[in-house]
Amino acid sequence: MAKIDEFMIGVDLGGTSMMVVALDSKGKILADRARSTKPELGADKVMERIADTVEKLLFDIGKGVRKAEGVCVGAPGVIDRENGLVVRAPNLNWTEYPLAKKLSQLLHSPVVLDNDVNAGAVGEHVLGAGRGARNMVAIFVGTGIGGGVIINDELYYGGRGSAGEVGHMKILADGPVCGCGRRGCVEALASRTAMERDVESALKAGRESAIPEIMKRDNRDRMTSSVIQEALQSRDALMEEVLRRAQLYLGLLVASVVNLLDPQCVVIGGGIVERLKEDFLRPVQMTAYEHFLRVKDSNRVKIVASELGDHAGAAGAAVLAWRALKGMDLRKSSMTNDK
Amino acid sequence: MAKIDEFMIGVDLGGTSMMVVALDSKGKILADRARSTKPELGADKVMERIADTVEKLLFDIGKGVRKAEGVCVGAPGVIDRENGLVVRAPNLNWTEYPLAKKLSQLLHSPVVLDNDVNAGAVGEHVLGAGRGARNMVAIFVGTGIGGGVIINDELYYGGRGSAGEVGHMKILADGPVCGCGRRGCVEALASRTAMERDVESALKAGRESAIPEIMKRDNRDRMTSSVIQEALQSRDALMEEVLRRAQLYLGLLVASVVNLLDPQCVVIGGGIVERLKEDFLRPVQMTAYEHFLRVKDSNRVKIVASELGDHAGAAGAAVLAWRALKGMDLRKSSMTNDK
Repeated sequence: MAKIDEFMIGVDLGGTSMMVVALDSKGKILADRARSTKPELGADKVMERIADTVEKLLFDIGKGVRKAEGVCVGAPGVIDRENGLVVRAPNLNWTEYPLAKKLSQLLHSPVVLDNDVNAGAVGEHVLGAGRGARNMVAIFVGTGIGGGVIINDELYYGGRGSAGEVGHMKILADGPVCGCGRRGCVEALASRTAMERDVESALKAGRESAIPEIMKRDNRDRMTSSVIQEALQSRDALMEEVLRRAQLYLGLLVASVVNLLDPQCVVIGGGIVERLKEDFLRPVQMTAYEHFLRVKDSNRVKIVASELGDHAGAAGAAVLAWRALKGMDLRKSSMTNDK
Repeated sequence: MAKIDEFMIGVDLGGTSMMVVALDSKGKILADRARSTKPELGADKVMERIADTVEKLLFDIGKGVRKAEGVCVGAPGVIDRENGLVVRAPNLNWTEYPLAKKLSQLLHSPVVLDNDVNAGAVGEHVLGAGRGARNMVAIFVGTGIGGGVIINDELYYGGRGSAGEVGHMKILADGPVCGCGRRGCVEALASRTAMERDVESALKAGRESAIPEIMKRDNRDRMTSSVIQEALQSRDALMEEVLRRAQLYLGLLVASVVNLLDPQCVVIGGGIVERLKEDFLRPVQMTAYEHFLRVKDSNRVKIVASELGDHAGAAGAAVLAWRALKGMDLRKSSMTNDK
């Protein structure tokens, strides 16, 4: 009977659902499971749901594995990594929750904690579209816009641990009010929430669109990525217009980030990128390249779509577990593996 | 007779004037000299002017010093550090000029090259307002807006060596056209050139202002920092209004940079900051702090005025010479020195 390779568990904890993966030391995903989060049950119950999912994952892997060697959870909101605390997670309605301690007691395994978007950036850097880029910025577009920064091959945290908040970079002074309460943030211009707001305003003003019909037919109360895709497929003029503006602002965001940080690679992810792929990316790239300061060698900055999709956060969390708990840099082993 | 401490020469080469300093290994400026650049004489003549100024500096230091141990020139524009080339310097009208080789032949000393604004950022980080900050961003406001990024106590270059171009971060999509040919850049909103453009448009439209009179009296054909200061002292309403807008956009720039990089310190410099000091800084700080994502601990990010003034670039260049030519990190010696 072959000995099972060591592996680490990565958890991407979202407000709606969680993704859990087991990742071996070569960067291979051995098993994965998705499950709803149900934050309304309370934080302790969510811990039980994570622990239960991890146990099922161990069963999936099989061969007598009883216990995860280590776990990293990527959680939304403000994180105190040192103390394993979720300081504030509006999506989950948690404040000062000692996640690492609680989950560690349930799993009898060491647990570390990081920010979910940081974990996604690490996933793309080590295992996805950003491989080989010494400096990289990840931008994830969803109901909000989040990001992570890799500098000199390491996740960059900044002084207060809050680096990478690309969604709150200012792109249009005096633009619409953002979820953070201020104006000008790109999140208020290019997130799905922003697009939904624009569509609603246009509908109220009497513009015609197939979007309400599509949402009704699909039984959606939010303008999800799949709704956007269907509206585009039916060549809905309003949808095209609203998307075009969001892409313009995202392109300006990428230009801003590149003019400041000059990374080798910018990775763009999120549900809408996964669905629309190059159709989403191309206009963003065009605007960005036009606004790079050094046009001559602008092709040396790659602007690419996420490769790991909804596994980026969980895979990246597992990479962080390898680093934090075993001192192991998976980037090197996965790069040697690669070609 | 006391032995002279070793020292390095730093040169800040501007389109109008140059500043040359000799810096010892404790970070002390032993001597400094300013001189006009006269780029219209041609690049080789400018090299002679630098060499001549360095010789005078050696004479100032006295005690039989015959030769600089090493030189770093901070030059404007796009630099190829590895090959010691000024690739493109529009201010000087140079392309592909082998500065390091030419100057080294004149001085019989090793010469290295970096970007002038990068050098200024290093100066402020090691010897000025950014001391002790592990991550720092410097923003210099002049006819343009330039910057430099310090990450983990090191000057950060990025993939193409063009990191730190804060002036071309996008703050107002579809704003006025920038010197770089694109719209939305903060340089087109908050530099002295942008303020001058706004004043001119307002005057053309019939607004009253003391500015033309001040410029005439002072024999200035540009709206220099001293003109701005005099106009403010005479409570010129147009000047106040134009300055206020520039400060707003600069505050948004600082917020954008902090939300992305979360540095411990942002240093703001340039002639206008030196002249107006806190009066310039305070409105910028207010806007920035309002737009930080994490307001609770926003006071942990310092926003401060440059301390080295017009010596930042030359002093920083000398610090870079110590690093490049002697492998010596002046940050450590100057920090031990400090308190």
